[in-house]
Amino acid sequence: MTAFTYFKDEWTPVIDNYLAKHLASEIDDQKISQIMSYSVMAGGKRLRPLLFLATLNALGKKIEESEIRLACGIELIHTYSLIHDDLPAMDNDDYRRGKLTSHKKWGEAEAILAGDALLPLGVQWIAEGSNSSELVIMITKAIGANGMVGGQYLDIDSTNNASVADDEKFINKMEWLKTGCLIQASVEMAAVYAKASDIEQVKLVDFAKTFGRSYQIYDDLVDVVETSEEAGKATHKDEEEGKNNTLTLLGIEKSRKELKDLISQAKADLHGINNEVLLGFLDLYHKVL
Amino acid sequence: MTAFTYFKDEWTPVIDNYLAKHLASEIDDQKISQIMSYSVMAGGKRLRPLLFLATLNALGKKIEESEIRLACGIELIHTYSLIHDDLPAMDNDDYRRGKLTSHKKWGEAEAILAGDALLPLGVQWIAEGSNSSELVIMITKAIGANGMVGGQYLDIDSTNNASVADDEKFINKMEWLKTGCLIQASVEMAAVYAKASDIEQVKLVDFAKTFGRSYQIYDDLVDVVETSEEAGKATHKDEEEGKNNTLTLLGIEKSRKELKDLISQAKADLHGINNEVLLGFLDLYHKVL
Repeated sequence: MTAFTYFKDEWTPVIDNYLAKHLASEIDDQKISQIMSYSVMAGGKRLRPLLFLATLNALGKKIEESEIRLACGIELIHTYSLIHDDLPAMDNDDYRRGKLTSHKKWGEAEAILAGDALLPLGVQWIAEGSNSSELVIMITKAIGANGMVGGQYLDIDSTNNASVADDEKFINKMEWLKTGCLIQASVEMAAVYAKASDIEQVKLVDFAKTFGRSYQIYDDLVDVVETSEEAGKATHKDEEEGKNNTLTLLGIEKSRKELKDLISQAKADLHGINNEVLLGFLDLYHKVL
Repeated sequence: MTAFTYFKDEWTPVIDNYLAKHLASEIDDQKISQIMSYSVMAGGKRLRPLLFLATLNALGKKIEESEIRLACGIELIHTYSLIHDDLPAMDNDDYRRGKLTSHKKWGEAEAILAGDALLPLGVQWIAEGSNSSELVIMITKAIGANGMVGGQYLDIDSTNNASVADDEKFINKMEWLKTGCLIQASVEMAAVYAKASDIEQVKLVDFAKTFGRSYQIYDDLVDVVETSEEAGKATHKDEEEGKNNTLTLLGIEKSRKELKDLISQAKADLHGINNEVLLGFLDLYHKVL
Protein backbone atom coordinates (compact mmCIF):
# COMPACT_ATOMS: atom_id res chain seq x y z
CA MET A 1 0.00 0.00 0.00
CA THR A 2 1.51 3.32 -1.03
CA ALA A 3 1.37 6.47 1.07
CA PHE A 4 -1.06 7.84 -1.52
CA THR A 5 -3.40 4.83 -1.34
CA TYR A 6 -3.34 4.99 2.44
CA PHE A 7 -4.12 8.73 2.37
CA LYS A 8 -6.87 8.33 -0.21
CA ASP A 9 -8.49 5.45 1.66
CA GLU A 10 -8.39 7.45 4.88
CA TRP A 11 -9.89 10.69 3.57
CA THR A 12 -12.23 9.71 0.72
CA PRO A 13 -14.90 8.33 3.10
CA VAL A 14 -14.52 11.40 5.32
CA ILE A 15 -15.17 13.64 2.30
CA ASP A 16 -18.08 11.47 1.13
CA ASN A 17 -19.70 11.44 4.57
CA TYR A 18 -19.26 15.18 5.08
CA LEU A 19 -20.83 15.95 1.70
CA ALA A 20 -23.80 13.62 2.22
CA LYS A 21 -24.46 14.78 5.77
CA HIS A 22 -24.14 18.51 5.20
CA LEU A 23 -26.07 18.62 1.92
CA ALA A 24 -28.91 16.94 3.80
CA SER A 25 -28.73 19.12 6.91
CA GLU A 26 -27.85 22.56 5.49
CA ILE A 27 -30.41 22.78 2.65
CA ASP A 28 -33.91 23.67 3.84
CA ASP A 29 -35.85 22.28 0.88
CA GLN A 30 -35.57 18.50 0.74
CA LYS A 31 -36.28 18.25 -2.98
CA ILE A 32 -33.53 20.57 -4.20
CA SER A 33 -31.22 19.06 -1.58
CA GLN A 34 -31.90 15.65 -3.11
CA ILE A 35 -31.22 16.92 -6.65
CA MET A 36 -27.93 18.48 -5.53
CA SER A 37 -26.91 15.35 -3.62
CA TYR A 38 -27.73 13.08 -6.54
CA SER A 39 -24.87 14.55 -8.57
CA VAL A 40 -22.48 15.20 -5.69
CA MET A 41 -22.84 11.59 -4.47
CA ALA A 42 -22.60 10.05 -7.94
CA GLY A 43 -19.29 8.29 -7.39
CA GLY A 44 -16.72 10.99 -8.11
CA LYS A 45 -13.11 10.26 -7.25
CA ARG A 46 -12.85 13.40 -5.05
CA LEU A 47 -9.65 14.28 -6.89
CA ARG A 48 -9.73 18.02 -6.14
CA PRO A 49 -10.54 17.84 -2.40
CA LEU A 50 -7.96 15.04 -1.99
CA LEU A 51 -5.39 17.18 -3.80
CA PHE A 52 -6.22 20.06 -1.46
CA LEU A 53 -5.86 17.84 1.62
CA ALA A 54 -2.71 16.14 0.31
CA THR A 55 -1.10 19.55 -0.16
CA LEU A 56 -1.96 20.44 3.45
CA ASN A 57 -0.44 17.10 4.46
CA ALA A 58 2.73 17.85 2.49
CA LEU A 59 3.03 21.12 4.41
CA GLY A 60 2.46 19.49 7.81
CA LYS A 61 -0.94 21.13 8.35
CA LYS A 62 -3.36 19.15 10.48
CA ILE A 63 -6.65 18.18 8.83
CA GLU A 64 -9.69 18.97 10.98
CA GLU A 65 -13.31 19.86 10.28
CA SER A 66 -12.59 23.33 8.83
CA GLU A 67 -10.17 21.82 6.34
CA ILE A 68 -12.72 19.17 5.33
CA ARG A 69 -15.40 21.82 4.83
CA LEU A 70 -13.06 23.81 2.62
CA ALA A 71 -12.04 20.74 0.62
CA CYS A 72 -15.68 19.73 0.15
CA GLY A 73 -16.50 23.26 -1.06
CA ILE A 74 -14.14 22.65 -3.98
CA GLU A 75 -15.96 19.39 -4.78
CA LEU A 76 -19.36 21.15 -4.78
CA ILE A 77 -18.03 23.62 -7.33
CA HIS A 78 -16.56 20.83 -9.46
CA THR A 79 -19.93 19.04 -9.38
CA TYR A 80 -21.79 22.19 -10.46
CA SER A 81 -19.48 22.43 -13.47
CA LEU A 82 -20.21 18.82 -14.48
CA ILE A 83 -23.99 19.31 -14.23
CA HIS A 84 -23.90 22.40 -16.45
CA ASP A 85 -21.42 20.84 -18.93
CA ASP A 86 -23.79 17.91 -19.42
CA LEU A 87 -26.84 20.11 -20.26
CA PRO A 88 -28.56 19.70 -23.65
CA ALA A 89 -27.35 23.14 -24.77
CA MET A 90 -23.77 22.23 -23.82
CA ASP A 91 -22.31 18.71 -24.27
CA ASN A 92 -25.76 17.06 -24.16
CA ASP A 93 -24.69 13.98 -22.22
CA ASP A 94 -27.23 11.45 -20.93
CA TYR A 95 -24.91 9.51 -18.66
CA ARG A 96 -22.00 10.29 -16.35
CA ARG A 97 -20.24 7.73 -14.17
CA GLY A 98 -22.86 5.19 -15.25
CA LYS A 99 -25.80 7.21 -13.92
CA LEU A 100 -28.28 9.45 -15.69
CA THR A 101 -27.07 13.03 -15.81
CA SER A 102 -28.93 15.56 -13.67
CA HIS A 103 -31.15 16.96 -16.44
CA LYS A 104 -32.10 13.46 -17.65
CA LYS A 105 -32.99 12.41 -14.13
CA TRP A 106 -34.68 15.56 -12.80
CA GLY A 107 -35.35 17.87 -15.74
CA GLU A 108 -33.43 20.69 -17.33
CA ALA A 109 -34.60 23.58 -15.12
CA GLU A 110 -33.83 21.47 -12.05
CA ALA A 111 -30.31 20.69 -13.31
CA ILE A 112 -29.56 24.34 -14.08
CA LEU A 113 -30.75 25.33 -10.60
CA ALA A 114 -28.91 22.50 -8.84
CA GLY A 115 -25.71 23.80 -10.42
CA ASP A 116 -26.62 27.38 -9.59
CA ALA A 117 -27.09 26.30 -5.95
CA LEU A 118 -23.92 24.19 -5.69
CA LEU A 119 -21.65 27.00 -6.89
CA PRO A 120 -22.42 29.53 -4.13
CA LEU A 121 -22.62 26.76 -1.51
CA GLY A 122 -19.11 25.69 -2.50
CA VAL A 123 -17.83 29.26 -2.19
CA GLN A 124 -19.66 29.59 1.16
CA TRP A 125 -17.97 26.48 2.55
CA ILE A 126 -14.58 27.73 1.36
CA ALA A 127 -15.19 31.12 3.01
CA GLU A 128 -16.44 29.50 6.23
CA GLY A 129 -13.69 26.88 6.33
CA SER A 130 -10.91 29.39 5.74
CA ASN A 131 -12.21 32.74 7.06
CA SER A 132 -10.17 34.12 4.19
CA SER A 133 -11.27 36.48 1.44
CA GLU A 134 -7.96 35.63 -0.28
CA LEU A 135 -9.03 32.02 -0.82
CA VAL A 136 -12.42 33.20 -2.10
CA ILE A 137 -10.67 35.41 -4.63
CA MET A 138 -8.50 32.49 -5.76
CA ILE A 139 -11.41 30.10 -6.27
CA THR A 140 -13.70 32.62 -7.98
CA LYS A 141 -10.93 33.61 -10.42
CA ALA A 142 -10.20 29.96 -11.14
CA ILE A 143 -13.80 29.15 -12.10
CA GLY A 144 -14.81 32.38 -13.87
CA ALA A 145 -14.50 33.79 -17.38
CA ASN A 146 -10.70 33.82 -17.14
CA GLY A 147 -10.73 30.25 -15.83
CA MET A 148 -13.00 27.22 -16.03
CA VAL A 149 -16.08 28.86 -17.55
CA GLY A 150 -13.88 30.69 -20.05
CA GLY A 151 -12.48 27.33 -21.12
CA GLN A 152 -15.94 25.86 -21.52
CA TYR A 153 -16.88 28.90 -23.59
CA LEU A 154 -13.87 28.40 -25.90
CA ASP A 155 -14.83 24.72 -26.21
CA ILE A 156 -18.41 25.53 -27.23
CA ASP A 157 -17.24 28.31 -29.51
CA SER A 158 -14.62 26.16 -31.27
CA THR A 159 -16.53 22.88 -31.69
CA ASN A 160 -16.72 22.12 -35.39
CA ASN A 161 -14.61 25.19 -36.09
CA ALA A 162 -11.96 23.76 -38.41
CA SER A 163 -9.80 26.89 -38.16
CA VAL A 164 -8.69 25.95 -34.63
CA ALA A 165 -8.60 22.14 -35.07
CA ASP A 166 -4.82 22.20 -35.45
CA ASP A 167 -4.08 25.34 -33.44
CA GLU A 168 -2.01 23.85 -30.63
CA LYS A 169 -1.77 27.09 -28.69
CA PHE A 170 -5.52 27.57 -28.71
CA ILE A 171 -6.21 23.97 -27.68
CA ASN A 172 -3.67 24.09 -24.87
CA LYS A 173 -5.23 27.27 -23.57
CA MET A 174 -8.77 25.91 -23.75
CA GLU A 175 -7.83 22.67 -21.97
CA TRP A 176 -5.90 24.54 -19.33
CA LEU A 177 -8.80 26.84 -18.55
CA LYS A 178 -11.40 24.03 -18.55
CA THR A 179 -9.59 21.68 -16.21
CA GLY A 180 -6.21 22.99 -15.18
CA CYS A 181 -7.29 26.18 -13.42
CA LEU A 182 -9.45 24.46 -10.80
CA ILE A 183 -6.82 21.79 -10.18
CA GLN A 184 -4.15 24.46 -9.76
CA ALA A 185 -6.42 26.37 -7.39
CA SER A 186 -6.97 23.23 -5.27
CA VAL A 187 -3.23 23.02 -4.61
CA GLU A 188 -2.55 26.76 -4.44
CA MET A 189 -5.39 27.44 -2.00
CA ALA A 190 -3.92 24.78 0.29
CA ALA A 191 -0.47 26.38 0.03
CA VAL A 192 -1.85 29.83 0.94
CA TYR A 193 -4.12 28.42 3.64
CA ALA A 194 -1.26 26.46 5.26
CA LYS A 195 1.04 29.48 4.95
CA ALA A 196 3.64 27.70 2.84
CA SER A 197 6.99 29.46 2.45
CA ASP A 198 7.66 31.29 -0.82
CA ILE A 199 9.87 28.50 -2.11
CA GLU A 200 7.28 25.83 -1.18
CA GLN A 201 4.57 27.86 -2.93
CA VAL A 202 6.60 28.09 -6.13
CA LYS A 203 7.22 24.34 -6.17
CA LEU A 204 3.61 23.46 -5.39
CA VAL A 205 2.24 25.83 -8.02
CA ASP A 206 4.64 24.38 -10.59
CA PHE A 207 3.44 20.90 -9.64
CA ALA A 208 -0.19 21.99 -9.79
CA LYS A 209 0.29 23.38 -13.30
CA THR A 210 2.04 20.26 -14.49
CA PHE A 211 -0.53 18.01 -12.86
CA GLY A 212 -3.45 20.03 -14.24
CA ARG A 213 -2.06 19.79 -17.76
CA SER A 214 -1.40 16.05 -17.40
CA TYR A 215 -4.87 15.42 -16.01
CA GLN A 216 -6.55 16.88 -19.08
CA ILE A 217 -4.49 14.66 -21.40
CA TYR A 218 -5.35 11.68 -19.19
CA ASP A 219 -9.03 12.58 -19.34
CA ASP A 220 -8.96 12.77 -23.14
CA LEU A 221 -7.12 9.44 -23.33
CA VAL A 222 -9.71 7.77 -21.09
CA ASP A 223 -12.30 8.90 -23.61
CA VAL A 224 -10.76 6.71 -26.34
CA VAL A 225 -8.90 4.02 -24.40
CA GLU A 226 -11.72 2.87 -22.14
CA THR A 227 -14.93 1.32 -23.31
CA SER A 228 -18.01 3.31 -22.34
CA GLU A 229 -18.86 0.61 -19.80
CA GLU A 230 -15.58 1.17 -17.96
CA ALA A 231 -15.83 4.95 -18.12
CA GLY A 232 -19.49 5.09 -17.11
CA LYS A 233 -20.25 7.57 -19.87
CA ALA A 234 -20.29 7.79 -23.64
CA THR A 235 -16.71 7.44 -24.93
CA HIS A 236 -15.22 8.18 -28.36
CA LYS A 237 -17.66 11.05 -28.27
CA ASP A 238 -15.28 13.98 -28.56
CA GLU A 239 -13.99 13.03 -31.99
CA GLU A 240 -17.47 12.26 -33.35
CA GLU A 241 -18.68 15.69 -32.28
CA GLY A 242 -15.80 17.60 -33.79
CA LYS A 243 -14.26 18.42 -30.42
CA ASN A 244 -10.68 19.56 -30.56
CA ASN A 245 -8.24 18.48 -27.87
CA THR A 246 -4.63 17.46 -27.45
CA LEU A 247 -5.55 13.96 -28.49
CA THR A 248 -7.17 14.91 -31.81
CA LEU A 249 -4.12 17.10 -32.39
CA LEU A 250 -1.30 14.69 -31.43
CA GLY A 251 -2.92 11.27 -31.72
CA ILE A 252 -2.84 8.58 -29.01
CA GLU A 253 0.85 7.72 -28.98
CA LYS A 254 2.16 11.27 -28.90
CA SER A 255 -0.38 12.10 -26.18
CA ARG A 256 0.92 9.16 -24.12
CA LYS A 257 4.45 10.41 -24.66
CA GLU A 258 3.48 13.89 -23.48
CA LEU A 259 1.74 12.43 -20.45
CA LYS A 260 4.89 10.46 -19.55
CA ASP A 261 7.01 13.60 -19.90
CA LEU A 262 4.63 15.50 -17.64
CA ILE A 263 4.85 12.77 -14.99
CA SER A 264 8.63 13.23 -14.93
CA GLN A 265 8.17 16.98 -14.81
CA ALA A 266 5.74 16.72 -11.86
CA LYS A 267 8.29 14.67 -9.93
CA ALA A 268 10.95 17.28 -10.59
CA ASP A 269 8.59 20.11 -9.58
CA LEU A 270 8.16 18.61 -6.10
CA HIS A 271 11.86 18.08 -5.38
CA GLY A 272 12.49 19.07 -1.76
CA ILE A 273 8.81 18.88 -0.76
CA ASN A 274 7.37 16.11 1.43
CA ASN A 275 5.91 14.65 -1.75
CA GLU A 276 5.08 11.00 -1.07
CA VAL A 277 1.31 11.43 -1.13
CA LEU A 278 1.15 14.12 -3.82
CA LEU A 279 3.20 12.11 -6.32
CA GLY A 280 0.83 9.20 -5.82
CA PHE A 281 -1.83 11.13 -7.74
CA LEU A 282 0.19 10.39 -10.88
CA ASP A 283 -0.44 6.64 -10.40
CA LEU A 284 -3.96 7.28 -11.67
CA TYR A 285 -2.54 7.56 -15.17
CA HIS A 286 -1.23 4.00 -15.41
CA LYS A 287 -4.42 2.70 -16.96
CA VAL A 288 -4.04 4.84 -20.07
CA LEU A 289 -0.26 4.48 -20.52
CA MET B 1 -35.25 67.14 -6.46
CA THR B 2 -35.35 64.74 -3.52
CA ALA B 3 -32.30 63.50 -1.65
CA PHE B 4 -32.95 60.10 -3.24
CA THR B 5 -33.10 61.46 -6.79
CA TYR B 6 -29.93 63.42 -6.19
CA PHE B 7 -28.18 60.31 -4.82
CA LYS B 8 -29.43 58.11 -7.64
CA ASP B 9 -28.39 60.60 -10.30
CA GLU B 10 -24.96 60.90 -8.74
CA TRP B 11 -24.16 57.20 -8.38
CA THR B 12 -26.02 55.45 -11.22
CA PRO B 13 -23.57 56.68 -13.88
CA VAL B 14 -20.64 55.79 -11.61
CA ILE B 15 -21.98 52.23 -11.32
CA ASP B 16 -22.71 52.03 -15.05
CA ASN B 17 -19.24 53.26 -15.97
CA TYR B 18 -17.51 50.96 -13.52
CA LEU B 19 -19.39 47.93 -14.83
CA ALA B 20 -18.75 48.72 -18.50
CA LYS B 21 -15.09 49.55 -17.98
CA HIS B 22 -14.18 46.61 -15.77
CA LEU B 23 -16.11 43.97 -17.70
CA ALA B 24 -14.12 45.09 -20.74
CA SER B 25 -10.74 45.24 -19.02
CA GLU B 26 -10.87 42.28 -16.61
CA ILE B 27 -12.16 39.55 -18.95
CA ASP B 28 -9.46 38.14 -21.23
CA ASP B 29 -11.73 36.77 -23.95
CA GLN B 30 -13.46 39.59 -25.80
CA LYS B 31 -16.40 37.46 -26.96
CA ILE B 32 -17.52 36.20 -23.58
CA SER B 33 -16.86 39.67 -22.16
CA GLN B 34 -19.23 41.07 -24.78
CA ILE B 35 -21.92 38.49 -23.95
CA MET B 36 -21.64 39.26 -20.23
CA SER B 37 -21.70 43.03 -20.85
CA TYR B 38 -24.72 42.79 -23.13
CA SER B 39 -26.92 41.75 -20.20
CA VAL B 40 -25.19 43.79 -17.51
CA MET B 41 -25.48 46.97 -19.61
CA ALA B 42 -29.09 46.32 -20.68
CA GLY B 43 -30.61 49.25 -18.83
CA GLY B 44 -31.10 47.91 -15.33
CA LYS B 45 -32.07 50.37 -12.61
CA ARG B 46 -29.09 49.34 -10.43
CA LEU B 47 -31.50 48.97 -7.51
CA ARG B 48 -29.35 46.61 -5.45
CA PRO B 49 -26.00 48.44 -5.76
CA LEU B 50 -27.79 51.75 -5.10
CA LEU B 51 -29.43 50.24 -2.02
CA PHE B 52 -26.01 49.05 -0.85
CA LEU B 53 -24.47 52.49 -1.39
CA ALA B 54 -27.46 54.32 0.14
CA THR B 55 -27.10 52.20 3.28
CA LEU B 56 -23.42 53.15 3.50
CA ASN B 57 -24.51 56.76 3.06
CA ALA B 58 -27.06 56.44 5.87
CA LEU B 59 -24.27 55.17 8.13
CA GLY B 60 -21.90 58.00 7.19
CA LYS B 61 -19.47 55.71 5.34
CA LYS B 62 -17.55 57.34 2.50
CA ILE B 63 -18.05 55.84 -0.96
CA GLU B 64 -14.78 55.20 -2.79
CA GLU B 65 -13.59 52.72 -5.40
CA SER B 66 -13.69 49.65 -3.10
CA GLU B 67 -17.31 50.39 -2.22
CA ILE B 68 -18.22 50.78 -5.91
CA ARG B 69 -16.52 47.49 -6.75
CA LEU B 70 -18.46 45.76 -3.99
CA ALA B 71 -21.77 47.33 -5.06
CA CYS B 72 -21.16 46.36 -8.69
CA GLY B 73 -20.41 42.79 -7.61
CA ILE B 74 -24.00 42.58 -6.34
CA GLU B 75 -25.26 43.82 -9.72
CA LEU B 76 -23.24 41.16 -11.59
CA ILE B 77 -24.89 38.49 -9.46
CA HIS B 78 -28.34 39.96 -10.01
CA THR B 79 -27.70 39.99 -13.77
CA TYR B 80 -26.60 36.33 -13.74
CA SER B 81 -29.91 35.45 -12.07
CA LEU B 82 -31.92 37.25 -14.75
CA ILE B 83 -30.04 35.52 -17.59
CA HIS B 84 -30.69 32.07 -16.11
CA ASP B 85 -34.32 32.87 -15.21
CA ASP B 86 -35.01 33.79 -18.84
CA LEU B 87 -33.63 30.50 -20.26
CA PRO B 88 -35.95 28.27 -22.32
CA ALA B 89 -35.97 25.61 -19.59
CA MET B 90 -36.93 28.24 -17.00
CA ASP B 91 -39.27 31.18 -17.75
CA ASN B 92 -38.50 31.07 -21.51
CA ASP B 93 -38.55 34.82 -22.06
CA ASP B 94 -37.51 36.36 -25.39
CA TYR B 95 -37.31 39.96 -24.21
CA ARG B 96 -36.20 41.81 -21.11
CA ARG B 97 -36.09 45.59 -20.76
CA GLY B 98 -37.01 45.83 -24.44
CA LYS B 99 -33.96 43.88 -25.61
CA LEU B 100 -33.56 40.27 -26.70
CA THR B 101 -32.68 38.04 -23.75
CA SER B 102 -29.17 36.60 -23.66
CA HIS B 103 -30.05 33.17 -25.08
CA LYS B 104 -32.10 34.71 -27.92
CA LYS B 105 -29.26 37.05 -28.80
CA TRP B 106 -26.23 34.75 -28.32
CA GLY B 107 -27.47 31.18 -27.98
CA GLU B 108 -28.42 29.01 -25.05
CA ALA B 109 -24.96 27.62 -24.17
CA GLU B 110 -23.57 31.15 -24.32
CA ALA B 111 -26.29 32.45 -21.96
CA ILE B 112 -25.75 29.64 -19.45
CA LEU B 113 -22.01 30.33 -19.47
CA ALA B 114 -22.39 34.12 -19.27
CA GLY B 115 -24.42 33.58 -16.10
CA ASP B 116 -21.93 31.02 -14.81
CA ALA B 117 -19.17 33.61 -15.34
CA LEU B 118 -21.02 36.58 -13.83
CA LEU B 119 -21.77 34.77 -10.56
CA PRO B 120 -18.16 34.10 -9.48
CA LEU B 121 -17.02 37.49 -10.83
CA GLY B 122 -19.62 39.14 -8.62
CA VAL B 123 -18.43 37.21 -5.59
CA GLN B 124 -14.82 38.02 -6.51
CA TRP B 125 -15.55 41.75 -6.63
CA ILE B 126 -17.34 41.57 -3.29
CA ALA B 127 -14.39 39.71 -1.73
CA GLU B 128 -11.89 42.16 -3.25
CA GLY B 129 -13.90 45.25 -2.38
CA SER B 130 -14.47 44.18 1.22
CA ASN B 131 -11.53 41.92 2.11
CA SER B 132 -14.14 40.16 4.21
CA SER B 133 -15.06 36.49 4.24
CA GLU B 134 -18.12 37.50 6.31
CA LEU B 135 -19.60 39.45 3.39
CA VAL B 136 -18.87 36.53 1.05
CA ILE B 137 -20.75 34.21 3.38
CA MET B 138 -23.70 36.64 3.48
CA ILE B 139 -23.96 36.95 -0.31
CA THR B 140 -23.49 33.23 -1.04
CA LYS B 141 -26.17 32.30 1.50
CA ALA B 142 -28.55 34.89 0.03
CA ILE B 143 -28.25 33.50 -3.51
CA GLY B 144 -28.06 29.76 -2.81
CA ALA B 145 -30.51 26.94 -2.22
CA ASN B 146 -31.76 28.59 0.98
CA GLY B 147 -32.12 31.91 -0.82
CA MET B 148 -32.61 33.12 -4.38
CA VAL B 149 -32.03 29.84 -6.23
CA GLY B 150 -34.23 28.02 -3.72
CA GLY B 151 -37.02 30.49 -4.52
CA GLN B 152 -36.58 29.96 -8.23
CA TYR B 153 -36.73 26.21 -7.62
CA LEU B 154 -40.00 26.54 -5.67
CA ASP B 155 -41.36 28.70 -8.50
CA ILE B 156 -40.50 26.11 -11.18
CA ASP B 157 -41.74 23.29 -8.97
CA SER B 158 -45.08 24.97 -8.18
CA THR B 159 -46.00 26.42 -11.59
CA ASN B 160 -49.31 24.89 -12.63
CA ASN B 161 -49.45 23.09 -9.31
CA ALA B 162 -52.98 23.94 -8.17
CA SER B 163 -52.39 22.65 -4.64
CA VAL B 164 -50.25 25.70 -3.79
CA ALA B 165 -52.16 28.30 -5.85
CA ASP B 166 -53.90 29.59 -2.74
CA ASP B 167 -51.29 28.65 -0.16
CA GLU B 168 -50.34 32.10 1.09
CA LYS B 169 -47.54 30.88 3.32
CA PHE B 170 -45.91 28.99 0.46
CA ILE B 171 -46.22 31.92 -1.94
CA ASN B 172 -44.83 34.39 0.57
CA LYS B 173 -41.87 32.12 1.17
CA MET B 174 -41.20 31.60 -2.53
CA GLU B 175 -41.39 35.32 -3.30
CA TRP B 176 -39.18 36.17 -0.35
CA LEU B 177 -36.49 33.72 -1.43
CA LYS B 178 -36.62 34.74 -5.11
CA THR B 179 -36.32 38.48 -4.59
CA GLY B 180 -36.22 39.45 -0.95
CA CYS B 181 -33.07 37.61 0.11
CA LEU B 182 -30.75 39.42 -2.29
CA ILE B 183 -32.33 42.80 -1.48
CA GLN B 184 -31.93 42.14 2.24
CA ALA B 185 -28.31 41.09 1.68
CA SER B 186 -27.61 44.34 -0.23
CA VAL B 187 -28.59 46.35 2.85
CA GLU B 188 -27.21 43.97 5.47
CA MET B 189 -23.82 43.65 3.78
CA ALA B 190 -23.54 47.44 3.84
CA ALA B 191 -24.45 47.51 7.54
CA VAL B 192 -21.79 44.91 8.39
CA TYR B 193 -19.22 46.50 6.07
CA ALA B 194 -19.78 49.97 7.57
CA LYS B 195 -19.70 48.52 11.10
CA ALA B 196 -23.19 49.71 12.03
CA SER B 197 -24.11 49.56 15.72
CA ASP B 198 -26.34 46.71 16.86
CA ILE B 199 -29.39 48.97 17.02
CA GLU B 200 -28.68 50.37 13.53
CA GLN B 201 -28.26 46.86 12.17
CA VAL B 202 -31.62 45.76 13.56
CA LYS B 203 -33.40 48.77 12.03
CA LEU B 204 -31.69 48.37 8.67
CA VAL B 205 -32.40 44.65 8.50
CA ASP B 206 -36.06 45.29 9.37
CA PHE B 207 -36.19 47.89 6.61
CA ALA B 208 -34.47 45.54 4.17
CA LYS B 209 -37.01 42.80 4.89
CA THR B 210 -39.95 45.16 4.48
CA PHE B 211 -38.48 46.67 1.33
CA GLY B 212 -37.70 43.25 -0.16
CA ARG B 213 -41.26 42.08 0.43
CA SER B 214 -42.71 45.28 -1.01
CA TYR B 215 -40.48 45.12 -4.07
CA GLN B 216 -41.79 41.69 -5.04
CA ILE B 217 -45.40 42.92 -4.83
CA TYR B 218 -44.43 45.96 -6.88
CA ASP B 219 -42.77 43.74 -9.47
CA ASP B 220 -45.88 41.56 -9.77
CA LEU B 221 -48.08 44.66 -10.08
CA VAL B 222 -45.90 46.07 -12.86
CA ASP B 223 -46.56 42.82 -14.70
CA VAL B 224 -50.29 43.58 -14.94
CA VAL B 225 -50.46 47.38 -14.63
CA GLU B 226 -47.96 48.28 -17.33
CA THR B 227 -48.33 47.51 -20.99
CA SER B 228 -45.52 45.36 -22.34
CA GLU B 229 -44.15 48.37 -24.21
CA GLU B 230 -43.67 50.27 -20.97
CA ALA B 231 -42.22 47.30 -19.13
CA GLY B 232 -39.90 46.27 -21.97
CA LYS B 233 -40.89 42.63 -21.59
CA ALA B 234 -43.93 40.42 -21.96
CA THR B 235 -46.52 41.41 -19.36
CA HIS B 236 -49.65 39.62 -18.12
CA LYS B 237 -47.48 36.56 -18.57
CA ASP B 238 -47.50 35.19 -15.05
CA GLU B 239 -51.21 34.58 -14.93
CA GLU B 240 -51.31 32.99 -18.39
CA GLU B 241 -48.58 30.56 -17.39
CA GLY B 242 -50.19 29.46 -14.16
CA LYS B 243 -47.63 31.32 -12.02
CA ASN B 244 -48.67 31.84 -8.44
CA ASN B 245 -47.79 35.07 -6.69
CA THR B 246 -49.24 37.51 -4.17
CA LEU B 247 -51.17 39.15 -6.98
CA THR B 248 -52.92 36.01 -8.20
CA LEU B 249 -53.70 35.32 -4.56
CA LEU B 250 -54.96 38.74 -3.40
CA GLY B 251 -55.95 40.45 -6.64
CA ILE B 252 -54.81 43.93 -7.71
CA GLU B 253 -56.57 46.06 -5.11
CA LYS B 254 -55.57 44.03 -2.08
CA SER B 255 -52.00 43.86 -3.40
CA ARG B 256 -51.97 47.66 -3.66
CA LYS B 257 -53.27 47.89 -0.11
CA GLU B 258 -50.53 45.56 1.12
CA LEU B 259 -47.93 47.58 -0.75
CA LYS B 260 -49.17 50.78 0.91
CA ASP B 261 -49.03 49.13 4.33
CA LEU B 262 -45.47 48.00 3.66
CA ILE B 263 -44.45 51.54 2.69
CA SER B 264 -45.69 52.76 6.09
CA GLN B 265 -43.89 49.88 7.76
CA ALA B 266 -40.61 50.69 5.97
CA LYS B 267 -40.81 54.28 7.19
CA ALA B 268 -41.35 53.06 10.76
CA ASP B 269 -38.46 50.58 10.46
CA LEU B 270 -36.00 53.40 9.72
CA HIS B 271 -37.05 55.66 12.57
CA GLY B 272 -33.89 57.15 14.09
CA ILE B 273 -31.70 56.36 11.07
CA ASN B 274 -30.44 58.98 8.61
CA ASN B 275 -33.11 57.77 6.23
CA GLU B 276 -33.69 60.48 3.65
CA VAL B 277 -32.10 58.63 0.74
CA LEU B 278 -33.19 55.11 1.75
CA LEU B 279 -36.87 56.05 2.03
CA GLY B 280 -36.71 57.52 -1.48
CA PHE B 281 -36.50 53.99 -2.85
CA LEU B 282 -40.18 53.64 -1.97
CA ASP B 283 -41.03 56.41 -4.48
CA LEU B 284 -40.49 53.82 -7.21
CA TYR B 285 -43.84 52.31 -6.31
CA HIS B 286 -45.95 55.34 -7.19
CA LYS B 287 -46.52 54.18 -10.73
CA VAL B 288 -48.43 51.08 -9.64
CA LEU B 289 -50.39 52.64 -6.74
